Amino acid sequence: MRENTTRSAVLPVAPSRGRLRPLGLDEVTVTGGFWARRRQTNATATLDHCHDWMERVGWTGNFRAAVEGRIQRDRRGREFADSDVYKLIEAMAWEAGSGSGFAAELDARIAALTDTIAPAQEPDGYLDTAFGRPGQQPRYSDLEWGHELYCHGHLIQAGVAQMRARGDGELAKIARRAADHVCTAFGPGGIERVCGHPEIETALVELARATGEQRYLDQAALFVERRGRHTLAEPEFGRAYYQDDMPVREAAVLRGHAVRALYLAAGAVDVAVETDDDALLAAVVRQWEAAVARRTYLTGGMGSHHRDESFGDDFVLPPDRAYSETCAAVASVMLNWRLLLATGEPRYADLAERTLFNVVATSPSEDGRTFFYANTLHRRRRGTAPAADAQSPRADSGLRAPWFAVSCCPTNVARTLALLPAYLATADDDGVQLHQYADAELATSLTGGRDVALTVRTDYPSGGSVAVRIDRSPERPWTLSLRVPAWATGAGARLVDPDGVSRAVTPGTVAVTRRFRPGDEIRLELPVAPRWIAPDPRIDAVRGTAAVQRGPLVYCAESVDLPPGHEVDSVRVNPSVQPQDGPDGTVVASGALVAASNARAAEPGRSGSPGDSADADATADADTHTPADADARWPYAALDEAAVPDAERADIVLVPYYSWANRGPSTMRVWLPTTRPPTAPPGR
Amino acid sequence: MRENTTRSAVLPVAPSRGRLRPLGLDEVTVTGGFWARRRQTNATATLDHCHDWMERVGWTGNFRAAVEGRIQRDRRGREFADSDVYKLIEAMAWEAGSGSGFAAELDARIAALTDTIAPAQEPDGYLDTAFGRPGQQPRYSDLEWGHELYCHGHLIQAGVAQMRARGDGELAKIARRAADHVCTAFGPGGIERVCGHPEIETALVELARATGEQRYLDQAALFVERRGRHTLAEPEFGRAYYQDDMPVREAAVLRGHAVRALYLAAGAVDVAVETDDDALLAAVVRQWEAAVARRTYLTGGMGSHHRDESFGDDFVLPPDRAYSETCAAVASVMLNWRLLLATGEPRYADLAERTLFNVVATSPSEDGRTFFYANTLHRRRRGTAPAADAQSPRADSGLRAPWFAVSCCPTNVARTLALLPAYLATADDDGVQLHQYADAELATSLTGGRDVALTVRTDYPSGGSVAVRIDRSPERPWTLSLRVPAWATGAGARLVDPDGVSRAVTPGTVAVTRRFRPGDEIRLELPVAPRWIAPDPRIDAVRGTAAVQRGPLVYCAESVDLPPGHEVDSVRVNPSVQPQDGPDGTVVASGALVAASNARAAEPGRSGSPGDSADADATADADTHTPADADARWPYAALDEAAVPDAERADIVLVPYYSWANRGPSTMRVWLPTTRPPTAPPGR
Repeated sequence: MRENTTRSAVLPVAPSRGRLRPLGLDEVTVTGGFWARRRQTNATATLDHCHDWMERVGWTGNFRAAVEGRIQRDRRGREFADSDVYKLIEAMAWEAGSGSGFAAELDARIAALTDTIAPAQEPDGYLDTAFGRPGQQPRYSDLEWGHELYCHGHLIQAGVAQMRARGDGELAKIARRAADHVCTAFGPGGIERVCGHPEIETALVELARATGEQRYLDQAALFVERRGRHTLAEPEFGRAYYQDDMPVREAAVLRGHAVRALYLAAGAVDVAVETDDDALLAAVVRQWEAAVARRTYLTGGMGSHHRDESFGDDFVLPPDRAYSETCAAVASVMLNWRLLLATGEPRYADLAERTLFNVVATSPSEDGRTFFYANTLHRRRRGTAPAADAQSPRADSGLRAPWFAVSCCPTNVARTLALLPAYLATADDDGVQLHQYADAELATSLTGGRDVALTVRTDYPSGGSVAVRIDRSPERPWTLSLRVPAWATGAGARLVDPDGVSRAVTPGTVAVTRRFRPGDEIRLELPVAPRWIAPDPRIDAVRGTAAVQRGPLVYCAESVDLPPGHEVDSVRVNPSVQPQDGPDGTVVASGALVAASNARAAEPGRSGSPGDSADADATADADTHTPADADARWPYAALDEAAVPDAERADIVLVPYYSWANRGPSTMRVWLPTTRPPTAPPGR
Repeated sequence: MRENTTRSAVLPVAPSRGRLRPLGLDEVTVTGGFWARRRQTNATATLDHCHDWMERVGWTGNFRAAVEGRIQRDRRGREFADSDVYKLIEAMAWEAGSGSGFAAELDARIAALTDTIAPAQEPDGYLDTAFGRPGQQPRYSDLEWGHELYCHGHLIQAGVAQMRARGDGELAKIARRAADHVCTAFGPGGIERVCGHPEIETALVELARATGEQRYLDQAALFVERRGRHTLAEPEFGRAYYQDDMPVREAAVLRGHAVRALYLAAGAVDVAVETDDDALLAAVVRQWEAAVARRTYLTGGMGSHHRDESFGDDFVLPPDRAYSETCAAVASVMLNWRLLLATGEPRYADLAERTLFNVVATSPSEDGRTFFYANTLHRRRRGTAPAADAQSPRADSGLRAPWFAVSCCPTNVARTLALLPAYLATADDDGVQLHQYADAELATSLTGGRDVALTVRTDYPSGGSVAVRIDRSPERPWTLSLRVPAWATGAGARLVDPDGVSRAVTPGTVAVTRRFRPGDEIRLELPVAPRWIAPDPRIDAVRGTAAVQRGPLVYCAESVDLPPGHEVDSVRVNPSVQPQDGPDGTVVASGALVAASNARAAEPGRSGSPGDSADADATADADTHTPADADARWPYAALDEAAVPDAERADIVLVPYYSWANRGPSTMRVWLPTTRPPTAPPGR
């Protein structure tokens, strides 16, 4: 691996070596389009929203209660509530450090939150409001479920963000004291165990990178190596739940609790990169490959089980019981970014793109004040609007909710959007690489002080044209590389060079090496025409269905777009008819069949106006309604006894999955049964 | 409804009115065949096994610890551990009362257990080792999760069993004192709430029936009416979890935690029957109809969610994530029996039969010492043999386990097998009705003292011939009714009367009214030829698959029966070829396709001998193995890009689902993908 010598200051991830060098929030700015709108909402609404909720439900108050000696009585929230305060600070720091217009205000709020947190840190650096004080469980008495090192990890990440984005400050000192405490408590001669929730690993590596302190890296490596050696009690879900079933080096696939698995994998990559440990990196790559091939939803979502929030067995990817936690998507993007930096392979940027557009962007509502925690691919009955002032159950995925009893996702979305510009591009000795496409401005220095600046203009993802204008360039030739997304297979992608010469390109990386001049433009043309996607026949849960993808976006059918009285489960699509672009970013699937009537439509209170969100309460709970008589029969019959209900032809409108449930309660599905099955390979 | 005036003594359920009068364990004896073998194993192995485990894990010891003042320190097991001791006693009492050769020994063991329990009862009748003593939570301080009334319910059911099967005794007195306490604590002027887990309702009704005490019935009715009025805090899973979302009378479908829903429904039927409340009965019938049509597995199993052990939305019936708890099957049989007695409709006996053969019989191993807690319909990788001396996670359904941390199922299977003869037949003013078929002897008195005795000989369920010989008959004509199972639709069932006259019969009830003479024989001929079953197209999870049913038995493919190197997921069946009987109760599906190779078979350590249970440890965890390279690809592709792997023709051997995993670790599936889709109705 090459050493990273030139470094930006404002880097979320700053490996000291790797195939690619990350660019920081001081080098890349998102100036418009899909992500700019979401980043603006994040800065102006979501950060406030999270802060308000944490005050309201008492999570920030926990620190005050700890200092005032009343924590046993007054503590609020789950054992990991501290971590959400830290993630909010981290989000604020990245936002403030990305050239935001709100930097001064955010700095003041970070300072106030830091003042709240600081007095709760104990003299030896330990900081957790749930353990160790009179009347509480002793420190580290419940490593399986206590989340103490997890919370310390998020504190350290917040401290690193503060350090890098805003310069050294009080929070950075708190984070270092916490890290010193962790190294003393869990280092050689200390407690030889790990935390039930990985997170401390990647935090300690980043702190080592930020401070140059070897001790933190050593401790992170210790935690990675200790995992899988049964130092935690076996939980009901099995040791794989917290990846304690086998050493990281030996596992062949991501498994267990998805967020835990992905945070651990990210930490293992960090350790592998810093210690030049090719075997450890190869282990994570192997696990990534197996998980992507067999345990990942079309949206990029990971983790199918509701019960233990875990990956299921291979090909267990039920759309209607998809858990696909928002935090797992955030964690997957973190892992993919680290693997991309280490290897330079575009497949990691491909999965990051898919996950960002179809899970991370799906979670927050348009106003940035409600969120999906789980991201189902099929919703069979309409959700109930969550109370605006109540914490919601995390696993209900019918409508976005303002806050959850376990509310890790909102702050995780917030920090991801805040640092998102850092995921767009990298540099190496030869030039600049563009990985994600958005209206953006980039300015950096290549090795030898060669300044490069460029501007990206695109309507991505609704359009596939990406124009890169060179604003500043050294005299010598350098290389501009662009990712041709994997979804553009067979789609006739083209690159147009500054001379206007066009050539066909295929998925992977396309590079243009030349003596660029200011004003030169390179255009990448990616045909984003909608097309049918078929699932691997081994994914039993979606056999006989097809989905539509358009560019990187997964589409879905929503009941609000169906003929009156129909729900999505009455639709069958005809994949022999190519889907077409409709108005306003929609896609139209022609030649579909819609059942003339169906059980849900026949239910009282359902036949009226299915798109009317005002009837949410009346229609929310199908369990109050009597099913139509025709339905009250045993649902299994001899093959020759199947009834054939009437159906009518219809054109079905599909919308981007990320936008679903923005128009009130609806039923929704991504995988649509086909009128005749797609050409399924026999024998698999 | 007619009044039940003639009554047997040894009745698990003794309604005072209803369409049919139950026959007791002193009137019906199972003499051979499928259920006799399982009852023998239950009496000679399972009862001992459960008793030993409860001693070993300290659940019986809890009563001693409570008496000796060390319960706070020494209590073992979950909050509901007491209930399993009671269920064991109930099982022992029914077994002792069913003409068992082990009655004396069982009586002694019941007495010993009663001696253990009795001193722990408090002066006011309260009995629960988890609450109310120094250092414990106060009584009824956690009605949502504390299970105190649930435990009292099982205590009362054990007391009723003791009363009816063995005559009044100490346990009956304990049960009455407990019931008196419950009525005082929760009656008018008392705590106006319900228990998070229904169970007390049906117990109190049965105690009212056994004692003639109106107060118990009134209290049960109160509990039924109070449910659904939000007297419990809302849990994360929503109030439907414990059926507290809406009153029993208003709900249209069974919902929430399946065991809770079914116990409550059984109690509601009991209350409806005793209070002549047609509206309440109709509500339960409506809920049953909706649940059977949309929320029930082919096996009769109920409850698809692992997370909250609940029914899912309509048609959410994933085979690979089927929870289908054994206890829910037991509860479903309890509910169906009550509905059958109340209405006389054979559909309830149909579902009871399906559930008994395909879930209840599936749970215990052939030696009666290991059990399935969850009953999946699709197992994708081989289970790991559970440690013989450890409590297992309940939801792992790869292999049967000896005991669970939550071990409700083994004792529930034990009590069901013990009282099973009571489910075979009923009487009414006109005669005798046979509902379930087994080698059996029956002797009862019809109204007016007319003695009837008969003997049933059958090879059911492997064969479909049921011969009923009249051993004793009054002079006057009476009616013998036989259920023609719903599965026999279109199968050419016939009835042969004592004169040798044969006639075609269709599913429902067939009745023979005549002046019977001893030695007369009636024969029911049910063709049990195997046939393909197609699922309702609205069950997304099994689209494009078919299953085999033979008589009442659901069949499955198991990897031990496949060509070497293959797992069940490599199979596609051809439903245009009729399945045929194979040797030893197997079925052969000809013309299937088996993938020439597949991922699992290609894994190291898997290609050897898939049927060899000795390699369980080596193959148990696929996560240690590297996938074949060919598999490491994104599993979604444009329709025209799907790869077509080679496949070879094969005849696939299927075995009864109840017998799966009896030959060591295997992969298994009930619903088999088809080489070409079954004729699916369009538009649904």
